[in-house]
Amino acid sequence: MSRTLIRGGLVITAADETYADVLIEDGRIAALAARDSAAAAGWTAETVIDATDRYVIPGGVDVHTHMEMPFGGTTASDTFETGTRAAAWGGTTTIVDFAIQGIGQSLRAGLDAWHAKADGRCAVDYGFHMIVSDVGEQVLKEMDILVEEGVTSFKMFMAYPGVFYSDDGKILQAMQRASGNGGLIMMHAENGIAIDVLVRQALAAGKTDPRYHGEVRHALLEAEATHRAIQLARVAGSPLYVVHVSAEQAVAELAAARDQGLPVFGETCPQYLFLSTDNLAEPGFEGAKYVCSTPLRPADHQAALWRGLRTDDLQVVSTDHCPFCFTGQKDMGAGDFSKIPNGLPGVENRMDLLHQAVLDGHLTRRRWIETACATPARMFGLYPRKGTIAPGADADVVVYDPHAEQVVSAQTHHMNVDYSAYEGRRLTGRVETVLSRGVPVVRDRAYVGQAGHGRYVPRGTCQYL
Amino acid sequence: MSRTLIRGGLVITAADETYADVLIEDGRIAALAARDSAAAAGWTAETVIDATDRYVIPGGVDVHTHMEMPFGGTTASDTFETGTRAAAWGGTTTIVDFAIQGIGQSLRAGLDAWHAKADGRCAVDYGFHMIVSDVGEQVLKEMDILVEEGVTSFKMFMAYPGVFYSDDGKILQAMQRASGNGGLIMMHAENGIAIDVLVRQALAAGKTDPRYHGEVRHALLEAEATHRAIQLARVAGSPLYVVHVSAEQAVAELAAARDQGLPVFGETCPQYLFLSTDNLAEPGFEGAKYVCSTPLRPADHQAALWRGLRTDDLQVVSTDHCPFCFTGQKDMGAGDFSKIPNGLPGVENRMDLLHQAVLDGHLTRRRWIETACATPARMFGLYPRKGTIAPGADADVVVYDPHAEQVVSAQTHHMNVDYSAYEGRRLTGRVETVLSRGVPVVRDRAYVGQAGHGRYVPRGTCQYL
Amino acid sequence: MSRTLIRGGLVITAADETYADVLIEDGRIAALAARDSAAAAGWTAETVIDATDRYVIPGGVDVHTHMEMPFGGTTASDTFETGTRAAAWGGTTTIVDFAIQGIGQSLRAGLDAWHAKADGRCAVDYGFHMIVSDVGEQVLKEMDILVEEGVTSFKMFMAYPGVFYSDDGKILQAMQRASGNGGLIMMHAENGIAIDVLVRQALAAGKTDPRYHGEVRHALLEAEATHRAIQLARVAGSPLYVVHVSAEQAVAELAAARDQGLPVFGETCPQYLFLSTDNLAEPGFEGAKYVCSTPLRPADHQAALWRGLRTDDLQVVSTDHCPFCFTGQKDMGAGDFSKIPNGLPGVENRMDLLHQAVLDGHLTRRRWIETACATPARMFGLYPRKGTIAPGADADVVVYDPHAEQVVSAQTHHMNVDYSAYEGRRLTGRVETVLSRGVPVVRDRAYVGQAGHGRYVPRGTCQYL
Amino acid sequence: MSRTLIRGGLVITAADETYADVLIEDGRIAALAARDSAAAAGWTAETVIDATDRYVIPGGVDVHTHMEMPFGGTTASDTFETGTRAAAWGGTTTIVDFAIQGIGQSLRAGLDAWHAKADGRCAVDYGFHMIVSDVGEQVLKEMDILVEEGVTSFKMFMAYPGVFYSDDGKILQAMQRASGNGGLIMMHAENGIAIDVLVRQALAAGKTDPRYHGEVRHALLEAEATHRAIQLARVAGSPLYVVHVSAEQAVAELAAARDQGLPVFGETCPQYLFLSTDNLAEPGFEGAKYVCSTPLRPADHQAALWRGLRTDDLQVVSTDHCPFCFTGQKDMGAGDFSKIPNGLPGVENRMDLLHQAVLDGHLTRRRWIETACATPARMFGLYPRKGTIAPGADADVVVYDPHAEQVVSAQTHHMNVDYSAYEGRRLTGRVETVLSRGVPVVRDRAYVGQAGHGRYVPRGTCQYL
Repeated sequence: MSRTLIRGGLVITAADETYADVLIEDGRIAALAARDSAAAAGWTAETVIDATDRYVIPGGVDVHTHMEMPFGGTTASDTFETGTRAAAWGGTTTIVDFAIQGIGQSLRAGLDAWHAKADGRCAVDYGFHMIVSDVGEQVLKEMDILVEEGVTSFKMFMAYPGVFYSDDGKILQAMQRASGNGGLIMMHAENGIAIDVLVRQALAAGKTDPRYHGEVRHALLEAEATHRAIQLARVAGSPLYVVHVSAEQAVAELAAARDQGLPVFGETCPQYLFLSTDNLAEPGFEGAKYVCSTPLRPADHQAALWRGLRTDDLQVVSTDHCPFCFTGQKDMGAGDFSKIPNGLPGVENRMDLLHQAVLDGHLTRRRWIETACATPARMFGLYPRKGTIAPGADADVVVYDPHAEQVVSAQTHHMNVDYSAYEGRRLTGRVETVLSRGVPVVRDRAYVGQAGHGRYVPRGTCQYL
Repeated sequence: MSRTLIRGGLVITAADETYADVLIEDGRIAALAARDSAAAAGWTAETVIDATDRYVIPGGVDVHTHMEMPFGGTTASDTFETGTRAAAWGGTTTIVDFAIQGIGQSLRAGLDAWHAKADGRCAVDYGFHMIVSDVGEQVLKEMDILVEEGVTSFKMFMAYPGVFYSDDGKILQAMQRASGNGGLIMMHAENGIAIDVLVRQALAAGKTDPRYHGEVRHALLEAEATHRAIQLARVAGSPLYVVHVSAEQAVAELAAARDQGLPVFGETCPQYLFLSTDNLAEPGFEGAKYVCSTPLRPADHQAALWRGLRTDDLQVVSTDHCPFCFTGQKDMGAGDFSKIPNGLPGVENRMDLLHQAVLDGHLTRRRWIETACATPARMFGLYPRKGTIAPGADADVVVYDPHAEQVVSAQTHHMNVDYSAYEGRRLTGRVETVLSRGVPVVRDRAYVGQAGHGRYVPRGTCQYL
Repeated sequence: MSRTLIRGGLVITAADETYADVLIEDGRIAALAARDSAAAAGWTAETVIDATDRYVIPGGVDVHTHMEMPFGGTTASDTFETGTRAAAWGGTTTIVDFAIQGIGQSLRAGLDAWHAKADGRCAVDYGFHMIVSDVGEQVLKEMDILVEEGVTSFKMFMAYPGVFYSDDGKILQAMQRASGNGGLIMMHAENGIAIDVLVRQALAAGKTDPRYHGEVRHALLEAEATHRAIQLARVAGSPLYVVHVSAEQAVAELAAARDQGLPVFGETCPQYLFLSTDNLAEPGFEGAKYVCSTPLRPADHQAALWRGLRTDDLQVVSTDHCPFCFTGQKDMGAGDFSKIPNGLPGVENRMDLLHQAVLDGHLTRRRWIETACATPARMFGLYPRKGTIAPGADADVVVYDPHAEQVVSAQTHHMNVDYSAYEGRRLTGRVETVLSRGVPVVRDRAYVGQAGHGRYVPRGTCQYL
Repeated sequence: MSRTLIRGGLVITAADETYADVLIEDGRIAALAARDSAAAAGWTAETVIDATDRYVIPGGVDVHTHMEMPFGGTTASDTFETGTRAAAWGGTTTIVDFAIQGIGQSLRAGLDAWHAKADGRCAVDYGFHMIVSDVGEQVLKEMDILVEEGVTSFKMFMAYPGVFYSDDGKILQAMQRASGNGGLIMMHAENGIAIDVLVRQALAAGKTDPRYHGEVRHALLEAEATHRAIQLARVAGSPLYVVHVSAEQAVAELAAARDQGLPVFGETCPQYLFLSTDNLAEPGFEGAKYVCSTPLRPADHQAALWRGLRTDDLQVVSTDHCPFCFTGQKDMGAGDFSKIPNGLPGVENRMDLLHQAVLDGHLTRRRWIETACATPARMFGLYPRKGTIAPGADADVVVYDPHAEQVVSAQTHHMNVDYSAYEGRRLTGRVETVLSRGVPVVRDRAYVGQAGHGRYVPRGTCQYL
């Protein structure tokens, strides 16, 4: 039996903050004991980590990443190997990535392809959602099977006509199926049909710079789609999880639905909390670095997002990590913003940015852990193995130094992308040591992990239903 | 050092459900260990409690009781001794009772009087809120001192003119003071001025039966006062905690305020969740048993209360325990409902009724513990000593049998009152053993506690701010 | 010069109720004079109509009719001749019917076809809206021309995929065009894509009776489409007129938009105010008589519609007159509700049903005239020629007996359809005499009109903008 | 018989705009005839007024004036003689002023006192509301009598404790009485109890300048009182008319109530539409000129007021005319804003300011007449004698030059006050000629009226119920 002991830290979970020693046996949390207890005093272990003046927190759970994702004629620049390594550097010990059903393809074929990409390459544990691009009778039946196998969530798109787009009839059918099999429908909620008209009009008018990406993807068209998805879910009798919420009007739609007691959930991402259309409008082609969908919004939307996180109208902060290099990828859209690959790097930055939000007064420490670890784990059936520090849980643990200072930069980050969306930003707080199932992946700010340590994790169904 | 070990149960907190053994040292939770861990296997203790097939939950925290409270010419029938004993029987290990400032009196005088009533008599731990009946310059200054001493919450009344009533100017001043000193204003939100008109009109019209108590205390007049209290709190820049919310329109006011991100909180009570105006209209004078304020509402209000508890628009379930015997007390109001002492017994029933709500699908197990233990403790500055099972917390622990069946009855309850508001109701789930700071108060359904074990607990300020 | 004098009646307009004599010269209202004035006493005329104890009201303006409309393999059973004659019988002196653009066709071609149907056949005046089925660059340009010519409103469908349906991109483009040329977009707001899934599912489950027509066309899917249309209109910067609103949730969407000051308007129809799903569920195939889209709703939606009419969240009552005979047309859908032609007769009943609503306390007399005459005329650019009794207006005047009783029946009505949706209903109030531009069409309950009297009326743009 | 003929103008009422000649016989509107009709051509009259290029509009109805009102130790500077003369200059031909019940006094005594002030002195017609300061059994009975006599509206104050203030119980009783006798409760909706605390605190803190008047009378405390009044009216089953609405949050409360179909009405005043806290903050003591209650708000509240007028969430624009001279009256509050008499002059400016609003795009011409003439007349039982130009109505007519330009100034105005709240403002549009019951009061911008021409007008009950 291997034993690791983390001594002297402040253990923070979604519910409790307690000075406790944490004992790990064979990769799982065996016990917690009060710092000054006789029980703790009696513990011994081969490995002892000193966490004095440190936080001991659950490893982050990032339920929205796109490693090696093909998009717009190129592929996201992080592989499962580089991306999960960067995740570990940033204190995230589980990702849930998106396998994609190609049009005309079975879900199985898409899932198999993604397993092949990830298998044996990951530094930390991972699971899969399934992107459903092409609903039909056979696909609906496959959904049942995938839920049984541990792929319990299905993403659909109201945007991207001709690519991932599903019409309302297909969405309704998938929702009906999910209402029966325990699956959770995740929605990219933007009215892509209307947006594509605005895109064509903008380009025709010579509006080709990155900032027009933000203008044509109108906040009202995110709110509209959010409202529509909620109504379809009501008709289907299914729950709904809206991904990457960025517009305050969309938050209002979620809040109104939740006030009625509907099982509707919302996720936002650090880029919407910390960046804005000011970035999209940076001079030259710099704005392309910030092109993602839903787009960045004017800075005054941020207050609504923070408030939503506090009032639980938004439950999860994920990254939508989907990096494309500025040189060679983003520049495919020079002269035509619609050709800029959509996506930002971020899997490494999330836990730190949210800790900064704690210092800035936006969130409490417990809410930090709840939105970044516990709730995503519960929402997607990973709890209690992931997302908490409790007896019996996987020993995915981060020793976090709340006082260390860092400057975010592409020079020093570990994601495989040539720029940082947060270049030059000063943050207080930094990951020091990371355990994945008790095994060190980062130790005292040195990477000690290895590709293939990370295992695929089949998931249960949503625990909020 | 005394050690107690609770083996084999399912530990439920607001955040986690885990099969863990709980080790208690000297009255505090020393450690939790996974049931099958080597760490747990190595533990020994003088006292071992077998919790196989049982829940191990934090002792209940009831933040709204009125022991020995003078009201309408009589006194609530439970003393601190009988009331806290009944609380223990029902799995509640901390109460926060209300000390009362008499008109013309100082806060100190009122608080001293209540200390004298409770000191040396309680079976479990207790704290005090302060009822402020008479705001003035001196009283505002006393509020600062009381916060420092651990009386960090102040109840005010928009009802009961001539007794506890404060006008909006006095309320505003107290809120302003609280916004500076960290205190939390608790509000009885009913428009008592308007209600008193309706009372007089009803009596003049010969409407004297208990059921008219419910009619004159109009739901809109609860919602109105709730809205008013919220606006006053906004002007003052203070948080607000609304007690005993019963009307769906009042829940809507709270939800609207919370959607805006305001620090507004709401409590409801089992009587509003399980009883209705049907009870008030029971034949003869039976309805008097159910006379309390805010009053019971038509049964269709219950859905909004349950929904509010699920969506966190209501955060706390307390009892407003304030018993008056049917014979000799309630009957003071025969022929004039306005003379019926206001209040219901309930301190013993709360944990069981809410467990039944879990079985009925209204709440999850974690939400049961959150609304009945963790949130009340955090809201009123008792956390993490009370309300959770975590290393370092007071060992206030209940071993709960989720399968046992019981029938609620005045024949068998332990509250000092001659009727039960839930007479004959069948419930599944029952308290088996109760520890207060590690000391058994109830053991295998036998009372083994003693008056005076319970200690006064000074409280910190609200942890939701 | 021809002169007609209407003596002794109570003249009711949207704004005023006054005892006045009305003098008509050459087909226009020349003057009104107080009943007891010297001015009135001095008037003479070839024709004098005694309106003592009668109302003198503007002729009704029905802005939603479908004469001879091809639908689902058959054609609405009223021609312009029979339909406008029935309209006159019912006190309606202007209709605005819908010319239809066929897919692949120009707007012009559709409009010409409808002119050919109506020309020389109508008993009363008429105009045209244009149904836009196939938006494209050329069609957008034609919209400008049509507005100039007096076809100033364009109906689009979010329902009926494959027939009239436009996707959100086409709708957005048409709205943008309308925002520039003064046109008004009229919307059939139902999510037809989702509804068609439910239709297929219902039929596959053997649910083929007429009442399932109401179930599959879910109220939430009307509300959803209403919300979506509003958001698209906001993005386009255009006004919006939602036709045949039937669901209370859709009224709520309109009310919310109007509270924000958006130029959003709503119309309902008598069938939604007086009939319900109870009718759709009548035994045998009787329910087919009541199949229309949006469908009839449960009776408890009616209160919201009446309230909307009172609070001006709904502005217009039209009929959506689109009759199909029970025998030979409606029965095409025996065994498959989706094949029942959608539509009800009603052009003859509207003014009387709404007068009954006045007696029932739902509307005031002025609001009756406002919703049935003045506002539809203003909304669609017919004011002040139509919809009021004021100097200079067309002398479209109805002498209405508010005390006469009638029983509605297919036996006695004048619409070319073999059933009445209101068969057997007793109403108080009846049209006695109808003038169109001063010419009697109905005189003392005898038809004296003639096909071809009615003229095409080019319309101005919406007067609410 | 006297006859006057107004030729060639554009007659504007709440509903119609028509080129018509207006014939007046013996002080009433006898007839209207289309400009080019034979009927018009045949008319003759002793007096012919040429209204070519002019508007012919109903005389204004100002339902909120305070002539000679005692307040704060002084008296409003316009007598009924000077005030009604100024009203006529400004195109207002009817005022409804407020008789005041003194505390301890009967309604009758107050009403008699106001009759004595007005009798024989007014230039135009007038009526009275009754301010109820002291509700009791006898007063409630008097309300019935006053309604019968034509004083059909009763103003109550939630502000001004110790002066006009009524508590919620008294308000509820008066509302109950009004719900039975057809009376309309008018409410000054501000939480005066809370405001007085803020006043004392401000003065104690040395905040004595006029601008603090705006700060202490917090917008939330207007919204709160508005909500409270609405809820009390719901409990009483009575309608409600809220006077001088100034805060956007109060408009929101009214809109929410009206969406529910409640009979709730709101009035605003030109000062809230055209002035703001910027005026209150003018240097020195200049701000005192703008001290009124409810107070002026920050300029961004104006948009909500204009929107409310457009969406009919606000129905009436009155002046709350209550002038105090800057020298000798307003300066009573130098060094203590709470001693500044509350009130602004405005009775002469209302029609012109609202015409300017038409030119500025805030209102249509018809809505101008509706909010300033027709609706106030209907709301307070003066219709159809006042507020419209229709056969049978009183010939209160204004010939208005929409193209004339003027500069508002105390140098040229006719109100008995030494300053203008709109000094130097350029307006387009000006009253040219004013008839009161057919008698010229202003002719071609010369005053030709006389004290005592104006008659007391008993009023019917509210016509919106």
